[in-house]
Amino acid sequence: MAHEFRSTRQVEFHETDMAGMVHFAVFFTWMEEVEHAFMRSLDITVFHTDRGRVFTWPRVAASCEYVRPVRLTDTIEQHLRVERRGTKSLTYGVTFYHEGAVCARGQVTAVCCVRGENDTYASTELPAFVLERIEQAPDVDPTSRPDAEGVSR
Amino acid sequence: MAHEFRSTRQVEFHETDMAGMVHFAVFFTWMEEVEHAFMRSLDITVFHTDRGRVFTWPRVAASCEYVRPVRLTDTIEQHLRVERRGTKSLTYGVTFYHEGAVCARGQVTAVCCVRGENDTYASTELPAFVLERIEQAPDVDPTSRPDAEGVSR
Amino acid sequence: MAHEFRSTRQVEFHETDMAGMVHFAVFFTWMEEVEHAFMRSLDITVFHTDRGRVFTWPRVAASCEYVRPVRLTDTIEQHLRVERRGTKSLTYGVTFYHEGAVCARGQVTAVCCVRGENDTYASTELPAFVLERIEQAPDVDPTSRPDAEGVSR
Amino acid sequence: MAHEFRSTRQVEFHETDMAGMVHFAVFFTWMEEVEHAFMRSLDITVFHTDRGRVFTWPRVAASCEYVRPVRLTDTIEQHLRVERRGTKSLTYGVTFYHEGAVCARGQVTAVCCVRGENDTYASTELPAFVLERIEQAPDVDPTSRPDAEGVSR
Repeated sequence: MAHEFRSTRQVEFHETDMAGMVHFAVFFTWMEEVEHAFMRSLDITVFHTDRGRVFTWPRVAASCEYVRPVRLTDTIEQHLRVERRGTKSLTYGVTFYHEGAVCARGQVTAVCCVRGENDTYASTELPAFVLERIEQAPDVDPTSRPDAEGVSR
Repeated sequence: MAHEFRSTRQVEFHETDMAGMVHFAVFFTWMEEVEHAFMRSLDITVFHTDRGRVFTWPRVAASCEYVRPVRLTDTIEQHLRVERRGTKSLTYGVTFYHEGAVCARGQVTAVCCVRGENDTYASTELPAFVLERIEQAPDVDPTSRPDAEGVSR
Repeated sequence: MAHEFRSTRQVEFHETDMAGMVHFAVFFTWMEEVEHAFMRSLDITVFHTDRGRVFTWPRVAASCEYVRPVRLTDTIEQHLRVERRGTKSLTYGVTFYHEGAVCARGQVTAVCCVRGENDTYASTELPAFVLERIEQAPDVDPTSRPDAEGVSR
Repeated sequence: MAHEFRSTRQVEFHETDMAGMVHFAVFFTWMEEVEHAFMRSLDITVFHTDRGRVFTWPRVAASCEYVRPVRLTDTIEQHLRVERRGTKSLTYGVTFYHEGAVCARGQVTAVCCVRGENDTYASTELPAFVLERIEQAPDVDPTSRPDAEGVSR
């Protein structure tokens, strides 16, 4: 049972902007990359087939706070934690560090969906292959946990 | 004195992903595009020079809620409002609509900064050229307003 | 019968990089955007349904020459021409101008494909709805025309 | 003296499009990423400071041929070679493989420039720190080598 994941990444030149730092929207693609690396580490793919159904994870909410700029030559540590495992959703928190200092803190809530015809998606309860592999981190501040269950797509 | 801005956009093919909808991180570039279009409509550029100083707007926070998927052939209405004009920051809310229905609601807080040497930036109070052109929207729910003044970069 | 298309665009902040200019890869998304605007102007969509078949246009080749840097406040004129209408493909040339001077020249060859099961695509001869609306530009230098017909996907 | 570099990469979800494959423009950011990884392996940064001058590498030409689609779960091998070391430029060829089969072949020509005031760049002969570390691959087909020396920015 896993509830966190760490990885390290370079900044790519195309991720910078003319202010000389990483563009703010890039942190959302970084959050997705570390989330998917976490899933791959558990042998779960983004479009996971299980018993004839294809599961995927549209987002219902994403946010990021930017604490200090990130520049081209910085090496970034990424620390993902499962902040909430709901009935139908997973909320991840990702903290980005450079040399031990926080650069940014992000959060994303993804709803478990089954793919239907024509790229339609219906939310569903977390299936066994998720419940058996992913758990909520034990020590997350409960006041920081969103309640994503009310969200429908 | 302006406090809102509306525009319409096409979805571009490269903004979609293999789930057949617009990728969630794209909404943050859309928010930036409509914010900058609002500024251009007021003759303010992203790197605005005023009395020898260059002003720009790093972000300290950004968030988005996703209500329904957006697809390639959808035409999107964007409605930006100035949700908060602080001492040193502007918080924008942007609502995205397709055929009258809300697709997503985003918010971004940008801090007014003066550019120093080597792509460094120091926060500063909103200058006259901003105060004379941008005001807070009169009827935003005050409980939705973040307090960004505590944020430093 | 159409063989060219012109449009104008702003540079977006997220399209710049830390060198202070538009990143070189962005010109390929611009080429796609103007190609799709050309198709929309002819009532053709990127995934066009005709007589029960869905047509789309994977690329087999793309190139760009960069003549002068493009910066944030530049307004860019885009001029697309149909450089070659082959049996199964269309080759577009797009020239980008700022204030009358060429900034970049791109070319992309897209092969007409019919979508099969599971996101597979098979090349096909240009259908009537294309032949009736898109023609080769009359005065393109023939030595600049690639021969894309040998390409298979 | 180095003239080639190999690396392996995952496909990221945000790099796909609604056709279910990696978007064609993404290959240009991949080419840049492997080029910069090659330079980092030689202790050269993208904005390299040497004897008080800052060197960087604007592109004058980029191209790619697409041989077969790349999908989310494919692992991609990247093989970069220095196809031409000119007086002022480097031309890289990058071949992308999946399970031994070529997916795409790209080429990019970057001109060595010294940064001046206000994000301006002037081309210059390759400096000693490049000549001592990067050489032309010995066995590239000479007819495939572009002559980039005539290009000025």
